[in-house]
This record gives sequence, structure tokens and C-alpha cells, in this order.
Amino acid sequence: MNKKVAVILSGCGVYDGSEIYESVITLLRLDQRGAKVQCFAPNIPQMHVINHLTGEEMPETRNVLTEAARLARGEIKDLRDLDAGEFDALIMPGGFGAAKNLSDFASQGAECKVLPDVLSAAQAFAQAGKPVGMMCIAPTMATQIFGAGVVCTLGSDDDPAAAAARTMGAEHQPCEVTEIIEDTKHKLVTTPAYMLAQSISEAASGIYKLVDRVLELTVSK
Amino acid sequence: MNKKVAVILSGCGVYDGSEIYESVITLLRLDQRGAKVQCFAPNIPQMHVINHLTGEEMPETRNVLTEAARLARGEIKDLRDLDAGEFDALIMPGGFGAAKNLSDFASQGAECKVLPDVLSAAQAFAQAGKPVGMMCIAPTMATQIFGAGVVCTLGSDDDPAAAAARTMGAEHQPCEVTEIIEDTKHKLVTTPAYMLAQSISEAASGIYKLVDRVLELTVSK
Repeated sequence: MNKKVAVILSGCGVYDGSEIYESVITLLRLDQRGAKVQCFAPNIPQMHVINHLTGEEMPETRNVLTEAARLARGEIKDLRDLDAGEFDALIMPGGFGAAKNLSDFASQGAECKVLPDVLSAAQAFAQAGKPVGMMCIAPTMATQIFGAGVVCTLGSDDDPAAAAARTMGAEHQPCEVTEIIEDTKHKLVTTPAYMLAQSISEAASGIYKLVDRVLELTVSK
Repeated sequence: MNKKVAVILSGCGVYDGSEIYESVITLLRLDQRGAKVQCFAPNIPQMHVINHLTGEEMPETRNVLTEAARLARGEIKDLRDLDAGEFDALIMPGGFGAAKNLSDFASQGAECKVLPDVLSAAQAFAQAGKPVGMMCIAPTMATQIFGAGVVCTLGSDDDPAAAAARTMGAEHQPCEVTEIIEDTKHKLVTTPAYMLAQSISEAASGIYKLVDRVLELTVSK
């Protein structure tokens, strides 16, 4: 197949960075399907550092790119070096890092702003008609990337994140953890992952479908 | 199935902790097969902290249990609370953390010592006739756990880690990344994973077999 896919990470750990299981399952499925992957992350300080054992904030600072490098075994580049022209598709896993480091949704809700480098990179894919996959909390960035009316899921319609997405102008659709939602106009594929997953294999079922569909959409351009 | 499996982690990141892909693939396969999993890690400082972007040591300290909690979404316990009587099997992923935090193999080679809490926990499984799975560099702990003559793999026979394992008394067997080596006497299953893997799906192929075989061995006790 030899499709080239860019993956934007936001750190390493569900509470202050990329959700590790979502990210690894994404990378595993892409590799199983023969895609070439390059990971990217912004070279900025994390919003904060969370002790994942206690849930408490830790009195230290960590860099998003440096920590995301753990998830990529060092094979990662500064997000500023992401040229959409070199790739066939873009995927953004979730985890609070997507709402703390790639945007400020975690603190600002519907008033959030997507990090300019994330916005310009993702919009370059959108404008080129290349598919984008987003999972978990990451679709809270969808309206700023694709514009009002974008169709996406954050899991349950009752989730506060879904309500905020509607406020921002998204057409939110509820979705089972094992399924995906596709915005055919924008070639955006979303899945709830750990917005709903009760287990790692539940998360994997939806993420496998997302990766497979994103790769299919690169074929039909 | 409802088998209960303990997984011992050693941090979060290939160069100073648990290899993330190996750990997540282990957890994914265990969950897909219906096993109940509990992660553990020692509550000690990491040997050091490596910047995974540059490979350089960072001037800070991190705790093995706290960082391993990232890999377990917070669902992890202090290794001292691991009671082998509550579990059917034990699995130890690799990554340099297995040779830096669970033992001092990375600095001491064949003169290494396994951390006492790791040794006593693993020996309790061995003495109870319960299967143990170890991957990547983790089998360098096998002779101290099971005694001289233990059969295991660290990938290629020519690897310095394999030579050190032989010096310690192991019967090293070369193994493809997609395969496993089983010591039937000790119910020890090993696979090279990132000792040899050139890709995440290569690592997954051997790890899936390891997990499946470890679960089979719990049935046939």
C-alpha cells in the first residue's frame, strides 16, 4: 500500500498527554496495513504534569515533543516540520493532551482555541482533500479545522464535550465505541475510543475501523 | 476464561522504562482473550531519565511506579502488594527499564542482580507452577528467577545480552521475532520483541503468541 500517514501526538499519558493505548493501537494498525508513519508533536511545554498514580498535579514541567518521543521510540519530529504535501492522511489520537496541549478545550470549553501549528497543519490536509482521523476528545478541534456543520462524534450526545462541540457549530452524532462516524464531505473519520471505552479491546475495535477507513479514503481521492 | 494475570512494568518509555509498544500489545492481547489484568511496578526511583528525542540523560528524577502508572491509565499497584496466590500467570514486558530498574543488567551485565521484590514475586509464580512470560531484554533475569539451565531467548545467539545470559547459566536459544521459546519444565515463555523487531507489527506477532501460550499454560496446570 505504502500510504504515508502523519500522526500528531500531544505528550505521553492520558491525563496530560496522548492517550497511550489509543496512540499505540493507531500505530499498530497503520503498520499492519502497510502504511508508513511519521509522528509529530508541538515543541512546547505541557499545560501541566499529572501524577497518573494519584491524579494530582506535579510541581515540574515537561515538554510535549520530548514526552511524545517516548510514544514514538524517538522517531518523532517537531510539528512545525509537518508538510501535508508529503502525506496521504492525518490521524490525531486523544487523551487530555489533545484538549490541554493541542488546544485549550480542557480549560476553555466551547471558547477554546486550537494551537496555531495544529490548526494550520490539519487545515492543509483538509484543503488538499486528504482524510483526517480524530478520536476520543480530539474532535473538539473539528469545527475550527473544518468549519461549522462538520459531522463528528465524541461518544454520547449527553456528554458535556458533545454539548460544547454543538455550541461551537459541530453536528454531533452519537456513536458506539466499536463504530466510527464519517463526514463524507470533509473526509473526517471519528470514533469515541476512551470517551466510552470500558476496556482496551473495546477502544481497539473502533480505532481499527477508523484507521482502515482513513486508509480507504486515501485510495478514493 | 477469566484468568488473572499480573504484569510487572518498569516505567514508561523504551530507554528508561517499559517498552511502551510491548506493554500495550501485551495488555491488548490479554484483554482480547478475556484475561483480567493487574499491573504492578516497584515504588523506587528510576535509574535515570532519558530524553527520548535526543537519547541524552535529563537532570531530573522520576519514580518507576508513578511513570508506569501512565501505561496503566492509573490502574497500577506497588509491586510489594503482588501476591502470586491471587494470579494465574505473570508477564514482564521489556524495554531498558527491565535492565535498569527491575535489575541492574544494563550496568552490571552478567554480574547483575534482580531487584529483590521482583525476584521474590517472580519466584512465587515459578514455585507455584504458574506460567511466566518475559520479552525483549527481560529474560536476562531468568537464571536468577528459575536457576541455571533455564531455556530462554534474547533474539540472536550473537547478541551480547545472549552471551551474558549464557555466562549466567541460561540455555539461550535463538528465536525469530515472530516466534516464542518455551521452557516446558519451568513454564517460561520468551519472545525477542524489540531485541529484533523492525516494526511494531513484527513485535506484536511474537507477543500475541507469547500471551496466548502463557494463557494456555494456565489451563493445563
